[in-house]
Amino acid sequence: MNVVLTNPPRVARNIAQAFVRFGVATVHEAQGRIGLLSSCMRPIYPGAKIAGSAVMVCLPPADNWMLHVAVEQCQAGDVLVVAPTSPCDTGYFGELLACSLATRGVLGLVIEAGVRDVAALTRMEFPVWSKAVSAQGTVKETLGSVNVPVVCAGQLIHAGDLILADDDGVVVVPRQAAATVLQQSELREAKEAQTRARLKAGELGLDIYGMREKLAEKGLIYRAAEVEG
Amino acid sequence: MNVVLTNPPRVARNIAQAFVRFGVATVHEAQGRIGLLSSCMRPIYPGAKIAGSAVMVCLPPADNWMLHVAVEQCQAGDVLVVAPTSPCDTGYFGELLACSLATRGVLGLVIEAGVRDVAALTRMEFPVWSKAVSAQGTVKETLGSVNVPVVCAGQLIHAGDLILADDDGVVVVPRQAAATVLQQSELREAKEAQTRARLKAGELGLDIYGMREKLAEKGLIYRAAEVEG
Amino acid sequence: MNVVLTNPPRVARNIAQAFVRFGVATVHEAQGRIGLLSSCMRPIYPGAKIAGSAVMVCLPPADNWMLHVAVEQCQAGDVLVVAPTSPCDTGYFGELLACSLATRGVLGLVIEAGVRDVAALTRMEFPVWSKAVSAQGTVKETLGSVNVPVVCAGQLIHAGDLILADDDGVVVVPRQAAATVLQQSELREAKEAQTRARLKAGELGLDIYGMREKLAEKGLIYRAAEVEG
Amino acid sequence: MNVVLTNPPRVARNIAQAFVRFGVATVHEAQGRIGLLSSCMRPIYPGAKIAGSAVMVCLPPADNWMLHVAVEQCQAGDVLVVAPTSPCDTGYFGELLACSLATRGVLGLVIEAGVRDVAALTRMEFPVWSKAVSAQGTVKETLGSVNVPVVCAGQLIHAGDLILADDDGVVVVPRQAAATVLQQSELREAKEAQTRARLKAGELGLDIYGMREKLAEKGLIYRAAEVEG
Amino acid sequence: MNVVLTNPPRVARNIAQAFVRFGVATVHEAQGRIGLLSSCMRPIYPGAKIAGSAVMVCLPPADNWMLHVAVEQCQAGDVLVVAPTSPCDTGYFGELLACSLATRGVLGLVIEAGVRDVAALTRMEFPVWSKAVSAQGTVKETLGSVNVPVVCAGQLIHAGDLILADDDGVVVVPRQAAATVLQQSELREAKEAQTRARLKAGELGLDIYGMREKLAEKGLIYRAAEVEG
Amino acid sequence: MNVVLTNPPRVARNIAQAFVRFGVATVHEAQGRIGLLSSCMRPIYPGAKIAGSAVMVCLPPADNWMLHVAVEQCQAGDVLVVAPTSPCDTGYFGELLACSLATRGVLGLVIEAGVRDVAALTRMEFPVWSKAVSAQGTVKETLGSVNVPVVCAGQLIHAGDLILADDDGVVVVPRQAAATVLQQSELREAKEAQTRARLKAGELGLDIYGMREKLAEKGLIYRAAEVEG
Repeated sequence: MNVVLTNPPRVARNIAQAFVRFGVATVHEAQGRIGLLSSCMRPIYPGAKIAGSAVMVCLPPADNWMLHVAVEQCQAGDVLVVAPTSPCDTGYFGELLACSLATRGVLGLVIEAGVRDVAALTRMEFPVWSKAVSAQGTVKETLGSVNVPVVCAGQLIHAGDLILADDDGVVVVPRQAAATVLQQSELREAKEAQTRARLKAGELGLDIYGMREKLAEKGLIYRAAEVEG
Repeated sequence: MNVVLTNPPRVARNIAQAFVRFGVATVHEAQGRIGLLSSCMRPIYPGAKIAGSAVMVCLPPADNWMLHVAVEQCQAGDVLVVAPTSPCDTGYFGELLACSLATRGVLGLVIEAGVRDVAALTRMEFPVWSKAVSAQGTVKETLGSVNVPVVCAGQLIHAGDLILADDDGVVVVPRQAAATVLQQSELREAKEAQTRARLKAGELGLDIYGMREKLAEKGLIYRAAEVEG
Repeated sequence: MNVVLTNPPRVARNIAQAFVRFGVATVHEAQGRIGLLSSCMRPIYPGAKIAGSAVMVCLPPADNWMLHVAVEQCQAGDVLVVAPTSPCDTGYFGELLACSLATRGVLGLVIEAGVRDVAALTRMEFPVWSKAVSAQGTVKETLGSVNVPVVCAGQLIHAGDLILADDDGVVVVPRQAAATVLQQSELREAKEAQTRARLKAGELGLDIYGMREKLAEKGLIYRAAEVEG
Repeated sequence: MNVVLTNPPRVARNIAQAFVRFGVATVHEAQGRIGLLSSCMRPIYPGAKIAGSAVMVCLPPADNWMLHVAVEQCQAGDVLVVAPTSPCDTGYFGELLACSLATRGVLGLVIEAGVRDVAALTRMEFPVWSKAVSAQGTVKETLGSVNVPVVCAGQLIHAGDLILADDDGVVVVPRQAAATVLQQSELREAKEAQTRARLKAGELGLDIYGMREKLAEKGLIYRAAEVEG
Repeated sequence: MNVVLTNPPRVARNIAQAFVRFGVATVHEAQGRIGLLSSCMRPIYPGAKIAGSAVMVCLPPADNWMLHVAVEQCQAGDVLVVAPTSPCDTGYFGELLACSLATRGVLGLVIEAGVRDVAALTRMEFPVWSKAVSAQGTVKETLGSVNVPVVCAGQLIHAGDLILADDDGVVVVPRQAAATVLQQSELREAKEAQTRARLKAGELGLDIYGMREKLAEKGLIYRAAEVEG
Repeated sequence: MNVVLTNPPRVARNIAQAFVRFGVATVHEAQGRIGLLSSCMRPIYPGAKIAGSAVMVCLPPADNWMLHVAVEQCQAGDVLVVAPTSPCDTGYFGELLACSLATRGVLGLVIEAGVRDVAALTRMEFPVWSKAVSAQGTVKETLGSVNVPVVCAGQLIHAGDLILADDDGVVVVPRQAAATVLQQSELREAKEAQTRARLKAGELGLDIYGMREKLAEKGLIYRAAEVEG
């Protein structure tokens, strides 16, 4: 059964916006090393970073009809998250759909498939994380669903979950956990800021983290290298 | 038999130049969704775009001798299109060959293999679409052919065909079809400009394309999402 | 047995610095087409180029403990070269480790695995050549070794070998051969400069390299293309 | 938090066994084209087929400690389903673990990672569907979870779901849907048996499925081929 | 425009059958090292070998409607050769279509996409060379063409060309060249039979092929290995 | 410089033969988890297993001339180990070379490239571990070296090292370590035999290996699953 779930829950806008200060790696760690999408998901241009509420689309291979349906379900601060039901590198998304989404205040697209018009998308600064770039287009013949839970790039995502994407990739934080993970990210970042300062001052991680004793226990041996020639 | 076909037909220069206004995706659609090279063909730097007449090279794996032969067959407005007879990521092409081609007014290179000196090629603004970047060089031992029809990245290309390449990839338009496809691209672009304006004004694709009725016919259901937590 | 070899030999600093004038492709050719790492090793941002002395790390999959150990063994002008004992795309390295290395004057990282925080590394201009970008982190549980010989991306590398990396990839030059290969690179570059000038003046490689006779001997045929349509 | 959920629900044994008559493709269709694991999951030997109740394991990269924990949670008719938290081809599973599972009546293993001892597993007729074969072993250092919901090869699977695997791959049927999908599979199979008989008698799918009219409507043209040479 | 070309030319049946004595590698060499399909095309079971006349199908991604159309165009001794217009691993073909083709005397299928029901196809001994195995099915919505020239796995193939497939892969021989290539294959095989006999008798290729002088000319050095330890 | 090192050291024949009792995974573990070739190296048919002394060949891409040179350097009990200087899937090796090697008592081939005539090689029971199957042949134009150290599939191998290959892949044991690793393999196998007996009797690995306490220490929680529906 193909269904569009309207007015899905959404992670609170101020919480989502607060995540933009943190990198995907930091949030992934803060969350306990879960929620990372497959590293096949790459940004179409460097330097983009977004944090917003997921609108989910599940659609057939090589058929982007449901993207037009999904646009209407989007509002400012959303991130469109798309996965086909079988693996497909076809270019589902291009400049016209991006115009439509940008007009509504959508922050970007995460799609486990192909995208096209990347030069135009770069000029528009509409960021996309995708599995492929392909000018090959799609048809509009078969239905899918909007805002049902979808597995995208190896992670189960629900509408309204927090999506954070940067040059390292994409991480999902469940909506109900977002406030907690935000706090953990702040703690982690604060701790890292201290470590960063000490490392820049020349201290070693071996000392900061107190690793020397454990290394010795495990049997690590230090020995001068023999030099020949 | 290894042969160099001299003075091949060429797509008219003014027609080729007119294609630069359009993206690969637009021309691919305008042509009826044919002629797209495999999405493994990627530009070595972002933002390049060329449209010119194909000079074809078929050559052995890891042997670039025929590229030197092909240079002499090139003139201003050409695009060199190269495919090895068996899969090979070796760096067939670098800065010196690019100097030689640029001197003759060649617009760029499309090669289903590897390329090297990409920092220098980027500085020279000599664009290349390739399957790999590799500093591994080639030998000059075995013959191939120039300007015979060649399958490159999954498409059959004849000398003189129109090659259009941008950040989305590479499309080939048969020489005799180029004028017609140019008109179709213009029509498509004009239509897209209207659509773009309407989308930017906030209209939905669902309404512009009249999709709502067909979606209902196919059985798409809208239902309010249930919110928990 | 897990061992850290301290004070390894190092290629002379002035020799290493002299290599930065040359591209990876030039040095690979000058050295007799050996020493190139697999083309899966790509820079995280374009335009970087480094030449330095290898500090080697061999470590377990998904465990970056030995990187902290290796930092202490590094000094200005070094390049950290890392390979896991089984294939692994996990993000072993990020901004904090880069701060620590940059503070010590280390030039960059070559790692046959994943890296994260690439936006921060790009801002810091700390270059990395890696097999993957992944926000997935590692544990610190299992030992490895530092400055033992390691196969990285298909090449056997010893501590103190010269590592040269640019947009084309990464090449290793054995420490004892570095001075000789530097001379050969200079000779090659000088010869290429002459060829470049002649090519820019419009001469053909066919004539500069004297290829016409050998092509005829091998049976290459020139024939006018037949034009239809 | 790492947890082992004991005594999970299980799809009824007689229902699971009834599925063995059907192929993965049939059940996937009968279920509405959902639930198929990625086609990277391949059997280690041809001809195996199993249908059982999923015991789920989520574990760290290159660490198989939780497999030993999971064995105790398995009973006759179960299928062990395993996914690492980051991509990993290491050989998590070999002959000794297979002995232990076979002794308990476990039907086979589905693992989005590597497996080893495949010659012994083939002799034992203990089937495995995996992403890789690798003799590289694992450590036992870090916890994971058993019988929590896990995304394996792109599908979300709960403990007790029905797993069907054959030479075509692996499909999951949610436990609560299993009885219904079984009936749909039987209907589909019955219908296919009739079609099979008619096709073997020489009738065409074009006629059996009544496709000729729709093809004509869409504009399909039949024309005699021109023969040259 | 979508078209079905009926009654295409066909390579003579007796010529096609004569090719079965030869391997794909032999025919590929005899033909001058052209016509080999990409090595991504693998047989679904070992030991199959077919030689027949190509019936060509060009179809959309994830849509197998045209296969039903193509069946009617097939006769005894044909090989169905299929390529989608964009890369797609979906399972286009299964047991029912195989029943229909086998009933008509079709020898096998070559498809640059996915196939399913491989256990049943193996039992039926209906061989398939494909790029993937996937239980994911297709729709029947969009037209394609039958018996137009198609690029399949990197080679341009015309209806009626000779297709030879075995455990090494798939080679195409143009229809008009088939008789000549058959003779060349016979000559090559006869020569290889003599060489095989001499090699089994202990002679070396170095002597049979007279390589020693040319090796010395190129500068090959023989030296006793130094043994340590 | 291209060189053939004659009469290389060889691992003792009786030691090599004793390794055939053990699997690649066992020897890899016994040796301390080193020496495993990349998992891209797969056998051309299941069930083969060999253990012998390495004869090394380093050769150019798509050029198999040096294989003919290497045959003369082989004797009974050897395994030919081959790596090209740049990545290449071409079919370097087929039935005639296999005849020649089999006549001399060579046990099999390990090649980081392509192989052809796999049906014939299977009938002859001449095993090959390769990266690809391809009917695409090679030229004989450029020299390489025999019995120099070569990196093959990521491992540095010297002539005379012990090569063990089975369905799990390929492992190299340095010649001087072979006797020691053989003993360690025997110890490991004896220990595994005891464990196997206990597992078959129904004991759990959790108890045999004494894992329960350490799991509890790390914080593993057991909890009854909640069942719904």
